Amino acid sequence: MAIRVGIFGYGNLGRGVECAIKHNQDMELAAVFTRREPSKLKVLTEGARVCSVNEAPSMKDQIDVMILCGGSATDLPKQTPEMAKYFNVVDSFDTHARIPEHYEAVDKAAKESGHVGIISVGWDPGMFSLNRLYANAILPEGKDYTFWGKGVSQGHSDAIRRIEGVKDARQYTIPVDTALDAVRRGTNPELNTREKHTRECFVVANEGADLKAIETAIVTMPNYFADYDTTVHFITEEELLRDHAGIPHGGFVIRTGATGWENENKHVIEYSLKLDSNPEFTASVIAAYARAAFRLSREGQKGCKTVFDIAPSYLSAADGSELRKHML
Amino acid sequence: MAIRVGIFGYGNLGRGVECAIKHNQDMELAAVFTRREPSKLKVLTEGARVCSVNEAPSMKDQIDVMILCGGSATDLPKQTPEMAKYFNVVDSFDTHARIPEHYEAVDKAAKESGHVGIISVGWDPGMFSLNRLYANAILPEGKDYTFWGKGVSQGHSDAIRRIEGVKDARQYTIPVDTALDAVRRGTNPELNTREKHTRECFVVANEGADLKAIETAIVTMPNYFADYDTTVHFITEEELLRDHAGIPHGGFVIRTGATGWENENKHVIEYSLKLDSNPEFTASVIAAYARAAFRLSREGQKGCKTVFDIAPSYLSAADGSELRKHML
Repeated sequence: MAIRVGIFGYGNLGRGVECAIKHNQDMELAAVFTRREPSKLKVLTEGARVCSVNEAPSMKDQIDVMILCGGSATDLPKQTPEMAKYFNVVDSFDTHARIPEHYEAVDKAAKESGHVGIISVGWDPGMFSLNRLYANAILPEGKDYTFWGKGVSQGHSDAIRRIEGVKDARQYTIPVDTALDAVRRGTNPELNTREKHTRECFVVANEGADLKAIETAIVTMPNYFADYDTTVHFITEEELLRDHAGIPHGGFVIRTGATGWENENKHVIEYSLKLDSNPEFTASVIAAYARAAFRLSREGQKGCKTVFDIAPSYLSAADGSELRKHML
Repeated sequence: MAIRVGIFGYGNLGRGVECAIKHNQDMELAAVFTRREPSKLKVLTEGARVCSVNEAPSMKDQIDVMILCGGSATDLPKQTPEMAKYFNVVDSFDTHARIPEHYEAVDKAAKESGHVGIISVGWDPGMFSLNRLYANAILPEGKDYTFWGKGVSQGHSDAIRRIEGVKDARQYTIPVDTALDAVRRGTNPELNTREKHTRECFVVANEGADLKAIETAIVTMPNYFADYDTTVHFITEEELLRDHAGIPHGGFVIRTGATGWENENKHVIEYSLKLDSNPEFTASVIAAYARAAFRLSREGQKGCKTVFDIAPSYLSAADGSELRKHML
């Protein structure tokens, strides 16, 4: 019997989860939950049920795992603990600094209701975190580096859109090749913000807007751009839609470290992602962890977990002996 | 209290484990076990106990985890199940085809004695296996590629040494850059053996040996070299010792796959290692899993496990809340 998955929130991530369910033979879409008027929402899956978020609690016996697809700022801190009262849940909460409190809230709700909640699933947090952990455990003496990109940063694109005179914008975060190479050579460089990434912005200005003022507003913006070498390109709306419609991303997690009696041998562990679609990849990671949530729950486990707490075999549709035979 | 680790077998891997224990503050070397005369074995750790392998069973209360450092061909199939009668054990059994039977043997012994046994730990099998599993779970529709090198293959070096007229030899396995690049571009190439790796051999011949005959014997050797583009260099013994004393290795695990409703988005997941010392890195992975064996055993678990069965958090000396705060 397939794992019955619910999708709570139908933006880019929710659609990504819908696609991921299609790619996993042992899963089926039970329902999509939306805050919009359900009858007006068109989903990709033929015949799929679309419900109001308010109906979710009443469907607790029809869904094995509910995947929360809202945003980390305001949606998930409320929705994940709330839904954990009724379902096994998985979310992609990515506000790193607030993970401990989110963990506590989900843990409490999930333990009380007897469900499994897996939070902060995706690639960072998620696969990148896993690779940091594995590499740190293997090389206790070493140094971690994380680079992001080349990819679209939604937060930075939004920040540009809020500037007066800007109609639309797309911002790419780009790792600096020379910094990456220095890290890979094992020279353990100390890299400041500016040395690790550059930022490239494609901006559609309103007619008659002051381009010079927009550019200055971008490159001097604190936190977002002031600490980076930032390039601004003004383009037409057509160009933006034609050349910058995708949501690519990716990055690199590298740990360099030493072994040997006198630290005489150096090692480089590198994990990298190159993604055409950030939300679809995130959704694909989430789908694998939804399988884990289902299985852990069936084993009687409950409470909040992260990618750190889950044995890799739970992610695979294959059983242990198959995995040992073909993948070990 | 530190985790008391025993080292069973003191070759390159055993010495690597000894170094790894030094790098992990929560571990201490309890004893080294050798088949040689213990009084003649000099280890790196000041004051460390060196014992005969026959003494091991009598020390079962003094060792938390025994690390088996023998070879996969004949040592580990006997030693790991035998030692699992007395200890939690970790080994690096790497004969992929025989993993299922080794698993069964260790599982039986460990379950009967109430210990945890973790087999096939290292980088391949080990970290590479983990990355294959994670990547397959995330991208069910895709293609796996594993490349090894640049690094020294012990088995191939030994095969050359068995040729008449050869005094010593070192063989490097080298991934083909153009193949790697094609894989990374996501073109899903079908690559045969010759297209993935080349082999480079550095050979010291006996005086008066027939160099042409040695070269022919190497490049036409079935299984080992015949299917590869192989280069043979004759060098002096001094050059071999000077330029080829290290045991570097490494490699790449890459999975490319598609997501989206119509598979319209492509993704590349890549994990790579660049290692100065193959045995020391393997030993470092083993040390992390020795920690896991200790903890799992303390939780009351027993039987055989592989890297697939162990949640990443068990590898780290830090506790769950620390990991969530700083590494997620």
